Amino acid sequence: MKTIFISLLTLITFANLHAQKLSSPNTELQLKFELKKDGTPTYTLSYKDKTVIAESKLGLELVNDDTSLLNTFEITDISTSTFDQTWSPVWGEQSSIRNHYNEMAVTLLQPSKDRYIIVRFRLFNEGLGFRYEFPKQEKLTYFVIKDEHTEFAMTADHTAFWIPGDYDTQEYDYTTSKLSEINELFDEALTGNASQEQFSKTGVQTSLMMKTSEGLYINLHEAALKEYSLMNLNLDEPTLTFKSWLTPDAIGNKAYLQAPAVSPWRTIMVSDAATDILASNMNLNLNEPNKIDDTSWIKPIKYMGVWWEMITGKSSWNYTDDLPSVKLGETDYTKTKPNGTHAANTAHVKEYIDFASKHGFDALLVEGWNEGWEDWFGHSKDYVFDFVTPYPDFDVVEIQNYAASKNIKMMMHHETSGAIRNYERHLDTAYQFMNKFGYTSVKSGYVGDIIPRGEHHYGQWAINHYLYAVKKAADYKIMVNAHEAVRPTGLRRTYPNLIGNESARGTEFQAFGGSKPNHVTILPFTRLIGGPMDYTPGIFEMDISKLNPDNNSHVNSTIANQLALYVTMYSPLQMAADLPENYKRFMDAFQFIKDVAVDWEESHYLEAEPGEYITVARKAKNTSSWFVGNVNGITPRKTSLKLDFLEDGKTYEATIYADAKDAHYKTNPQAYKISTKKVSSKSTLKLKSASGGGFAISIIEK
Amino acid sequence: MKTIFISLLTLITFANLHAQKLSSPNTELQLKFELKKDGTPTYTLSYKDKTVIAESKLGLELVNDDTSLLNTFEITDISTSTFDQTWSPVWGEQSSIRNHYNEMAVTLLQPSKDRYIIVRFRLFNEGLGFRYEFPKQEKLTYFVIKDEHTEFAMTADHTAFWIPGDYDTQEYDYTTSKLSEINELFDEALTGNASQEQFSKTGVQTSLMMKTSEGLYINLHEAALKEYSLMNLNLDEPTLTFKSWLTPDAIGNKAYLQAPAVSPWRTIMVSDAATDILASNMNLNLNEPNKIDDTSWIKPIKYMGVWWEMITGKSSWNYTDDLPSVKLGETDYTKTKPNGTHAANTAHVKEYIDFASKHGFDALLVEGWNEGWEDWFGHSKDYVFDFVTPYPDFDVVEIQNYAASKNIKMMMHHETSGAIRNYERHLDTAYQFMNKFGYTSVKSGYVGDIIPRGEHHYGQWAINHYLYAVKKAADYKIMVNAHEAVRPTGLRRTYPNLIGNESARGTEFQAFGGSKPNHVTILPFTRLIGGPMDYTPGIFEMDISKLNPDNNSHVNSTIANQLALYVTMYSPLQMAADLPENYKRFMDAFQFIKDVAVDWEESHYLEAEPGEYITVARKAKNTSSWFVGNVNGITPRKTSLKLDFLEDGKTYEATIYADAKDAHYKTNPQAYKISTKKVSSKSTLKLKSASGGGFAISIIEK
Repeated sequence: MKTIFISLLTLITFANLHAQKLSSPNTELQLKFELKKDGTPTYTLSYKDKTVIAESKLGLELVNDDTSLLNTFEITDISTSTFDQTWSPVWGEQSSIRNHYNEMAVTLLQPSKDRYIIVRFRLFNEGLGFRYEFPKQEKLTYFVIKDEHTEFAMTADHTAFWIPGDYDTQEYDYTTSKLSEINELFDEALTGNASQEQFSKTGVQTSLMMKTSEGLYINLHEAALKEYSLMNLNLDEPTLTFKSWLTPDAIGNKAYLQAPAVSPWRTIMVSDAATDILASNMNLNLNEPNKIDDTSWIKPIKYMGVWWEMITGKSSWNYTDDLPSVKLGETDYTKTKPNGTHAANTAHVKEYIDFASKHGFDALLVEGWNEGWEDWFGHSKDYVFDFVTPYPDFDVVEIQNYAASKNIKMMMHHETSGAIRNYERHLDTAYQFMNKFGYTSVKSGYVGDIIPRGEHHYGQWAINHYLYAVKKAADYKIMVNAHEAVRPTGLRRTYPNLIGNESARGTEFQAFGGSKPNHVTILPFTRLIGGPMDYTPGIFEMDISKLNPDNNSHVNSTIANQLALYVTMYSPLQMAADLPENYKRFMDAFQFIKDVAVDWEESHYLEAEPGEYITVARKAKNTSSWFVGNVNGITPRKTSLKLDFLEDGKTYEATIYADAKDAHYKTNPQAYKISTKKVSSKSTLKLKSASGGGFAISIIEK
Repeated sequence: MKTIFISLLTLITFANLHAQKLSSPNTELQLKFELKKDGTPTYTLSYKDKTVIAESKLGLELVNDDTSLLNTFEITDISTSTFDQTWSPVWGEQSSIRNHYNEMAVTLLQPSKDRYIIVRFRLFNEGLGFRYEFPKQEKLTYFVIKDEHTEFAMTADHTAFWIPGDYDTQEYDYTTSKLSEINELFDEALTGNASQEQFSKTGVQTSLMMKTSEGLYINLHEAALKEYSLMNLNLDEPTLTFKSWLTPDAIGNKAYLQAPAVSPWRTIMVSDAATDILASNMNLNLNEPNKIDDTSWIKPIKYMGVWWEMITGKSSWNYTDDLPSVKLGETDYTKTKPNGTHAANTAHVKEYIDFASKHGFDALLVEGWNEGWEDWFGHSKDYVFDFVTPYPDFDVVEIQNYAASKNIKMMMHHETSGAIRNYERHLDTAYQFMNKFGYTSVKSGYVGDIIPRGEHHYGQWAINHYLYAVKKAADYKIMVNAHEAVRPTGLRRTYPNLIGNESARGTEFQAFGGSKPNHVTILPFTRLIGGPMDYTPGIFEMDISKLNPDNNSHVNSTIANQLALYVTMYSPLQMAADLPENYKRFMDAFQFIKDVAVDWEESHYLEAEPGEYITVARKAKNTSSWFVGNVNGITPRKTSLKLDFLEDGKTYEATIYADAKDAHYKTNPQAYKISTKKVSSKSTLKLKSASGGGFAISIIEK
């Protein structure tokens, strides 16, 4: 690890100091911190000499504290420093990541209250991160945040790619509109969900992606969210200023802090190149280094699952239809009538194991294996699952042995139903069960409103829980893929056993009515800024009625687009989500899924436009192989793909999986063509992407 | 066990049935159940042919259900039966308890909703218990209670002994007044508390004790409170009707139920003898039989504690005064300055062990032994204790060995600060720690508002937790004494390792300003109806300023009254709460505490008047010894005590600890006289009790 650390401690007489500037390493970004006359702290950000974030306030409102931490500050110290270090993640888009920023820490004293805070700014080439720090001190020990008052003042009515602000879910399709249109389009943007609560018709979630009329890209998000509540943004329409809006607990408070404490980092990325936004590691770099000593048990996973057939309604999670309700430990399932559609049965699981093993997959997820699925949803049920009791037709030991014999790891499923206390009561025994029966990773879920009632998925209470579960999992050498939990904000750097999250509108919604065809060209700019997404791609049968006649949903994507997702939707955890029988019909296309890597040495974002297209090339770790993916939005498009990222002097064979000439996400999604070509770093490929289409290429050294 | 079980199943055509009667075994109590024209269920109770409870409604209001379970019922079944069984508790006031009642179960169908409930009545000689039952059925699975609408219609403006209705505490002094005066006296009755929330100026808690102008005693309470929220009562002044008022959760709902389910029993005791109220086992009998197979590890305890010196302010729980706040695991106590007043240090604990051992005690409680006491209170702190990390001056192993060598069991202390999730996260390791280091029982505490915020001490959420902790403790063979938890309602029958609760205004309040001198003549009629109280008596130094010059509190009791409490305030867990040095000054009086038993074969309530006096005689289990106690209220009083409970033909020596002639709880509390006398079953003792005084007698066979 190459480390250059230069510290410049600047002590100036601060009595009359009101403003201070900071530059990014390449000087393109300029930050100005300024204290107003009334002692309100503000910041301004410019890019290449043009203001991007106009003067924006900072501060926090406290409960039972009239003065709060909003104004009447004085600067008592400004420290600046530079940091430049390269580090290696356990897994990721790159094997080596540079962390290079200029930092400014401003100490703000509130004389009337004899207390102080620090606002720390880190300016990277691609963006700004800043946070509030509350050092240990006599006059600031315990305090409750009523709301945070951080502003992000936009300079014009930009185009935004947004979803409605919500305390419980991110599973919305994106709306592309001007900021001034958010209000009128808000209701339309709302679709139903098992758990949701909005707070304002101009509320939006992060990360928020924007593009100005001058072609500048701006992204707002947060990093290192822990022991705090999630930040949404609320637009003040007259001033086009976004204001932070934290998530309340059951009694309306936003966060409970004990000094010493820090807020999460608020991040602003700016570039005239959209690919810079996607390529940035700023969110990761703002997180603390890895805390897990031995990471040998943490490995990226390519998996299949007994799952999609339930999502489509072809099969059921529940074992029987006999029971109006279940009481775990009292309900005798052997006395009920099996419904005949319960997919998680030993024989069927073994079929999946056979297929997955034959095709080189690492793991198999099985949902619906455990008692309790008959009434798990919609009843605010507390003792809903115990995570250790299988249904009568799921033989844990037999499956464990069979999977082991086929070199398949079993992936556990813990649906919590949002009943957090119940999950924590069972967590140790649930993890011990996993260790005992060979489950190395767990997909956890939080479907439905959180229990304790009144709490939200994105409140401090639940956020504390999610990390508690991840840390405890590490004690048991278990990898975690948490669905419906808080969207990630880079904690995977500190806890690399957190290998996945959903926390956005994933592939399952294609079976719940479909998602917009350009959805996957937006997600990497929004949801994925803070971390990978278990998007569960790889659907080959777009007409869901073929799986379940009662479900007329359509997957708004071509097969080539589905293949591309393994490259464009970064995740160390990649699922081939469809049913084996659907793959069997397109084994040539399936070959790409078998070949594509899940862990990367390098990643090059070649071209990108939010809502339109993304093209990425990645080099697989410890190989000379490359994989390229393109996902396309509504408008058919041509790409001139230069392969100059390949190593000079080598020859490769490229296998290109592309949309057929007449492919279309809706009318002809399964039309693709596969071709091979000898290529080198000097080659250029001419490719066409259909509407909702794309292409995927594997490039193997020859 | 002698069991007589007679079941009479009566099937009648119910089409036109609206009313049904039930008698108690001795026929003195008569119940009438009646369905009103609009299908509202009601009940009426009479005693010796006079109405005691006028026509009172039954029913429940549900969330999202207009019809609710309030009316439009039809009777579809009435079953009556008789039960007569004698059973033995693991410990108690008697070694053998008779459970004898006549039962009537009324099935009520709501045709419009195609669902039904059962109201089950059990009529004992001393009172009525009834509950709602929700059998498993298709149209009633999950439901949320908005409020229960059970009424208790009083027939006149009775005298009541009450405390303000509250969702979080029972630690109030009692007010004696007419029902019509509750409203005006309510504010005065409210004293401060670490956690409290009232709901109505005519709200009162249970058990509620009343006396009519004709000298009839009435007691309202509940039994078997679990998976439900606590019932307070709200008086409707014009009709003098008490209505049930359940405790809300964070979002205002009262209870979440899943059929099959039952409500707690609502109990009404009636007698013209106040002693019948105290002697009743109805509350216990309404609970389910013991569920713990091996109870050999459950034993009543006489203990002392490193506690009173902190309660009085003489010493501190916390180790240091240096720290404004603590972060467990990060705070290094060895680097702080000990405050010199930390009582829970090894040497001092050994002094207590010496004294307790020398005088035949079973156990020693130590509070303030563990890291975290510097900021445990008033900060809504989540991770407040870990229950396993001692202060630098508390040597766990040395104390374990020393206690064992002196035949003293250590009693653990788990103050949770109301942070329920934190306690549950640490519960297993905390109990394992106890097993490892020789702690056989634990005093747990819930001081301060409950976390998760918005929940209440008496809500379903917390009530579920208290029982969870007790059940888990049984797995570790640990006895539990829970303070600030819900007041007991007989669950000790089912879980006999629940050996104590506080959940009322205990002796500590004598150091916080004092309690009314007749407080202890009321508590057995109110708080103790549902179970024993760890009242922690035995204070010999009434002038608290002698322990701590800054504390001018006075213990409003004479020494004789303190001794009597070991007999009158039933508990299998009895503390000699004062400091050894105070006992050393009155070793002759202390002898009674050493001699008194903590487990009983028989108990005879000889005379009682709520607010005035209670006299009890109890026979110690497996001995021929008897102990008598009298506690007296404000008015000095004479007792003519017939010893006809003694065994005929035996001679005994009675040692009488009585108030001296001029004793008075305030002006001369430490004046007592001890005399001995030969007695038999034919003897009568003439005794005088001072104001706030009493007497205690040990009667040993000679």
